[in-house]
Amino acid sequence: MMRRMAGLGPNEALIGRAGSRSALDTPALIVDLDALERNIAAMAAAARAAGVALRPHAKTHKSVRIAGMQVAAGALGICCATLGEAEAMVDGGLPGVHITSPVVTPPKVARLMALHRRAERGLSVVVDHPENLAALDRAAGAAGRPLAVLVDFSAGHGRTGCADEAELVRLARAAIAAEGLEFRGIQSYSGNLQHIARRAERRARTLAELERLGGMLRRLRDSGIAVPIVSGAGTGTFDLDPEARILTELQVGSYIFMDVDYLRALKDGRNAAPFETALFVATSVVSVNAPGYVTCDAGLKCFATDGPAPEPAAGAPPGSRYEFFGDEHGKLILPPGAPRPPLGAILECVTPHCDPTVNLHDVYHLVRGDTLVDIWPVDARGKR
Amino acid sequence: MMRRMAGLGPNEALIGRAGSRSALDTPALIVDLDALERNIAAMAAAARAAGVALRPHAKTHKSVRIAGMQVAAGALGICCATLGEAEAMVDGGLPGVHITSPVVTPPKVARLMALHRRAERGLSVVVDHPENLAALDRAAGAAGRPLAVLVDFSAGHGRTGCADEAELVRLARAAIAAEGLEFRGIQSYSGNLQHIARRAERRARTLAELERLGGMLRRLRDSGIAVPIVSGAGTGTFDLDPEARILTELQVGSYIFMDVDYLRALKDGRNAAPFETALFVATSVVSVNAPGYVTCDAGLKCFATDGPAPEPAAGAPPGSRYEFFGDEHGKLILPPGAPRPPLGAILECVTPHCDPTVNLHDVYHLVRGDTLVDIWPVDARGKR
Repeated sequence: MMRRMAGLGPNEALIGRAGSRSALDTPALIVDLDALERNIAAMAAAARAAGVALRPHAKTHKSVRIAGMQVAAGALGICCATLGEAEAMVDGGLPGVHITSPVVTPPKVARLMALHRRAERGLSVVVDHPENLAALDRAAGAAGRPLAVLVDFSAGHGRTGCADEAELVRLARAAIAAEGLEFRGIQSYSGNLQHIARRAERRARTLAELERLGGMLRRLRDSGIAVPIVSGAGTGTFDLDPEARILTELQVGSYIFMDVDYLRALKDGRNAAPFETALFVATSVVSVNAPGYVTCDAGLKCFATDGPAPEPAAGAPPGSRYEFFGDEHGKLILPPGAPRPPLGAILECVTPHCDPTVNLHDVYHLVRGDTLVDIWPVDARGKR
Repeated sequence: MMRRMAGLGPNEALIGRAGSRSALDTPALIVDLDALERNIAAMAAAARAAGVALRPHAKTHKSVRIAGMQVAAGALGICCATLGEAEAMVDGGLPGVHITSPVVTPPKVARLMALHRRAERGLSVVVDHPENLAALDRAAGAAGRPLAVLVDFSAGHGRTGCADEAELVRLARAAIAAEGLEFRGIQSYSGNLQHIARRAERRARTLAELERLGGMLRRLRDSGIAVPIVSGAGTGTFDLDPEARILTELQVGSYIFMDVDYLRALKDGRNAAPFETALFVATSVVSVNAPGYVTCDAGLKCFATDGPAPEPAAGAPPGSRYEFFGDEHGKLILPPGAPRPPLGAILECVTPHCDPTVNLHDVYHLVRGDTLVDIWPVDARGKR
């Protein structure tokens, strides 16, 4: 017998109440809706000004609603890291869904074809190997309409993608020749460049990588192959890539939320990005018996642990730090002389690495100022 | 329009098919059911032999079914780290549910009282502060029946719990005097001792801590206070704590799965625990274009990142290592001369820190030998 509140969680009754942001049942993932809207508008304006299209990455938010806001602001579609994310986005009605990682195994190819059959508004996927290309060709042939593919180029990152120009050309020609496939272009994502600390170095390496890619594309086009789409970039290089005029669209993700890493780069003036923090985790003080710190209710099942620590924000004494204190707790370390937050006090933290932090939560709590205005599911949380 | 397979995920059709373990849609969280059953039986036997009761910790598995197996093997109840876990366990019919962290804020206290009203088979919670004790007393008085509480003692860990004997006595007396509460005993969990590498040091510090606790309990009992329950311990000290004959029950969790950390202690002979690995993540090779490694489809949204790396097991060339390669990918680094797993090959990894790894998955894939025999939900995943 299940009597728990399902779906939107224990805070649903607070929607619309003034002051509800500071009365949430915690831990709670919070999105500042005003900041989110400004971030989406700022990236849309920057891309328009630079003459490049946007297909933002849903791996960051995994939310049909937020993807819809990005498309409403002019994005021509949505990128997905996993097939499960693409299923959520297609079934949520999003157009132009592109899967940025190879879909390889037989069960995944079967799911991809089921999705392809129902993706009325566009679906594409990368390929980086002739065997995978042949498997997709056979399966899409049986599905009765061609599947759009982009050839993935590794661009020095080496995670996925073909390793050299010869392989790129071979795969592009094979895709064009395949009756079940439609060759749509090239993906080249430099994940290794997004977090280079010094902006000058990040710019130099980004432009060098794009120049190399540009040469390959020129030769490809000179040999008579049309390459309508060239897709890449991230929030760390979104304003650098367009200088090279090589990419036709940007796969930016983190700009909508801005986590601790990206914010530090902003504060240091190393990044020109006109974005602001929109993502927080609210946590409550649940134990106050130790000197110098209090224990809060958000631990490593609430925050990603692959990057910096959460950064205390609203409600925390200035100068305090947050450390993990097990699965369900955090230690708010107080600076000398700081007032001690009382038992039950609520504070917010800027999140470490935003993508895997979001993946730990079932819902977003949307706030405007101090008011909870809505709760949205993290639709593709945990979907592979 | 949602046409995805819901609930049990894409592998449901494979249940019962011979060889299905190596044909799973990946990444997939796998439990070796034979090993799980042996681990549960071994801990039950060890506790019986030592004359101590078990109330295993559900924070590890968050599964009503696995908790039921532990109770069927003789456990007198189930511990929970969060109220959300306790809701899942009570609503799943489990007896003797004990919440090991303070439940403090007004929304949490309201949920606790709703749970208390429907927990026919027993519910208790720790308190570590007089304000929280008073709040629970008021709320439980209104609920019409007393709420069982254990006073939490910090035991040098300092995460939660009162800090000294004077406070312990004060809280115990306050709980006894409170009409809405029933004083049930003391919790003293030494989370800081579980992972001490050298067994001799772990034993010495565990027994010293328990001797201190024993003195406090003697004085408490000499002053006329009955202390029926003394709860603590973890998988790292389960065979050391009973020596002191202080604890009446053990809150062990990780023994059912055994992760990389605990297994290393086992292999080094530092731990006498008769347990074996029961938890794995299956991952597929999705890109093979780089020298010296292949890229797999399980990254830091599939594995906890607060401890060691995943450890390659079945299907991986001996001597290979696994490194994180972004949110959705891992790098299987091959030893010199090792055969290269082909595109689409499936391998398994022993998981890093098991509790937060489980929390990243919606379902367990139960296997016996090479066959998927069932799929169970991770009922309390993400529940706070």
